[in-house]
Amino acid sequence: MTGEFTLIAQLGRYLAPAGGPVLLGHGDDAAVVDLQGGAAVLAVDALVEGRHWLAAVSSFEDVGWKAVAVNCSDLAAMGASPVAAVVALHRPDRVTAAQVEALYRGMAEAAGVYGTALVGGDTVASDTLAVSVTVLGRVEAGREVRRAGARPGDALVCVGGLGAAAAGLGEATAGATPDPGRADPRLLQAHRRPRALLAAGHALAEAGATAMIDVSDGLGADIAHICRASGVSAELRLDDLPVADGVLAAADRLGIDRVTAVAGGEDYALVAALPPERAEEAVAGAAAAEGVPGAVVGRIVDPARRPLVGLVTASGVVDLSGRGYDHYAQQGDAGATPP
Amino acid sequence: MTGEFTLIAQLGRYLAPAGGPVLLGHGDDAAVVDLQGGAAVLAVDALVEGRHWLAAVSSFEDVGWKAVAVNCSDLAAMGASPVAAVVALHRPDRVTAAQVEALYRGMAEAAGVYGTALVGGDTVASDTLAVSVTVLGRVEAGREVRRAGARPGDALVCVGGLGAAAAGLGEATAGATPDPGRADPRLLQAHRRPRALLAAGHALAEAGATAMIDVSDGLGADIAHICRASGVSAELRLDDLPVADGVLAAADRLGIDRVTAVAGGEDYALVAALPPERAEEAVAGAAAAEGVPGAVVGRIVDPARRPLVGLVTASGVVDLSGRGYDHYAQQGDAGATPP
Repeated sequence: MTGEFTLIAQLGRYLAPAGGPVLLGHGDDAAVVDLQGGAAVLAVDALVEGRHWLAAVSSFEDVGWKAVAVNCSDLAAMGASPVAAVVALHRPDRVTAAQVEALYRGMAEAAGVYGTALVGGDTVASDTLAVSVTVLGRVEAGREVRRAGARPGDALVCVGGLGAAAAGLGEATAGATPDPGRADPRLLQAHRRPRALLAAGHALAEAGATAMIDVSDGLGADIAHICRASGVSAELRLDDLPVADGVLAAADRLGIDRVTAVAGGEDYALVAALPPERAEEAVAGAAAAEGVPGAVVGRIVDPARRPLVGLVTASGVVDLSGRGYDHYAQQGDAGATPP
Repeated sequence: MTGEFTLIAQLGRYLAPAGGPVLLGHGDDAAVVDLQGGAAVLAVDALVEGRHWLAAVSSFEDVGWKAVAVNCSDLAAMGASPVAAVVALHRPDRVTAAQVEALYRGMAEAAGVYGTALVGGDTVASDTLAVSVTVLGRVEAGREVRRAGARPGDALVCVGGLGAAAAGLGEATAGATPDPGRADPRLLQAHRRPRALLAAGHALAEAGATAMIDVSDGLGADIAHICRASGVSAELRLDDLPVADGVLAAADRLGIDRVTAVAGGEDYALVAALPPERAEEAVAGAAAAEGVPGAVVGRIVDPARRPLVGLVTASGVVDLSGRGYDHYAQQGDAGATPP
């Protein structure tokens, strides 16, 4: 097996040298980054094999891409811009140097697309393959869009197609053994290579978003985070949700109802609350900036006597607050009880 | 099992709220930190159970402390100051909520001591217990002390006692089963609760250090990093190395020679190159600021016809460049070959 330092030297081609905001890149005790007077924004997300991805479904490149993209998505949801990233790679012996390199290639690809410099990291031996990425970004202090801040009367908008990643993974794993060949390629791609909607995040922040989140845990669970932080409730209209192409057909094939199909999580769509008079124009601009669907999907309401997140369907209001993926409980308890 | 969001709520007491440089603490998509015009410094280190610590030797509090302290040590080696930290906790089902809380308590303790705000993180289910911490710090742009910069003629200084952590772990694991009761408590503490020598790092930077590193991989391996980055060689004198109290006695008990005893790694001592006329005063001040041993231990020399890191002993010059702990190879190949 290649020694740690030799492998790190080989991986240097995927890491950013000094330049632009990177004053000191990889290869020292720490990296040094100039945020040009902005405030620092910090997010971390870890992906674990068998939990967040399946070897039969996602390549090492896909995993590297996703590890960077989901962190950039967190920054998009703040209206912030990613600048630099570091990685902690937990590597079992069975993972070859070529596979590590593929993972780094995927990280570097996403970092390039999202304007983020991969400035270093740590590689540790472990029995479980996992990759933990931390992204550092910048935002003008006070201009970040938080989860708290939504007010009754605000419109709720969603930018990005819902349901694709969950449907793609669902189709690929519907049989006795995972088979990505079974899935609609568009849906599978959404699971393998989620997009961080940074331009949309900036556009919504500029338009005066009062609260924003990215849909990672699930539509209901994530909007519930906004509601709890803001002390409000949300009312969504099922018919207005921007469902990704191919999701409803896949849901039909899988025998999954429409509500479950759109609530699945890992969409990395952005949901924002906005003053209602600006909502239509803001969502149109944000969606156009990304080339993804977007719509006004509901409104922020007074929390009294209402579910935290209600979904208006033809057959009544569904409580969506508990719908989503809790990596622990997987019992829908996440967000079911307002604090 | 406690759901993810419920546990995260319980852990909130260990996380920093907004205040001081923290504009937005935990509980949002990302944290926002004001670096007050300084450049951002970013370091990540992951610890894996069974590789970086043993359950029989270190408590969950110890592991949490260490995960934060070793990252702060990386910042000390840049002459930087830690400001905020995030954690990715990889948690097997068997790890109880109380144990997770103990780990967070240890992280919060170290964060408090080192002036770092724990501003959030990610908890993921995994078969292998691991904790990956990223620390964000600040430094005046251009004032960071890198690995590159050492010049022939510079003195080499070391602040912090060498050999303690390796000897403590060595004693605890010398028998058929690990038993911390066998180890000198001072040495064991160095393994369980390493210190980040931030004040010493600042003092050495102020004194004009031309290159600096913290001793994590091992004295020879880490000084070799400075030598490669700077294009120089280093010459150390065994008799001048600041050996931690109790190390030589433990080495005797373990049947380990003196060179191996001081080269073991995980000391988190700081090694810096300095103009020779300032070295004595600088190391005395830096050691006094921490209450640890410190000494001028050698010099930077022209690399021609010399080992990368030579250790002068009574019986000749030992090539120390390959001595240290490579988490992969464990064959001493790390740093054996200059690039």
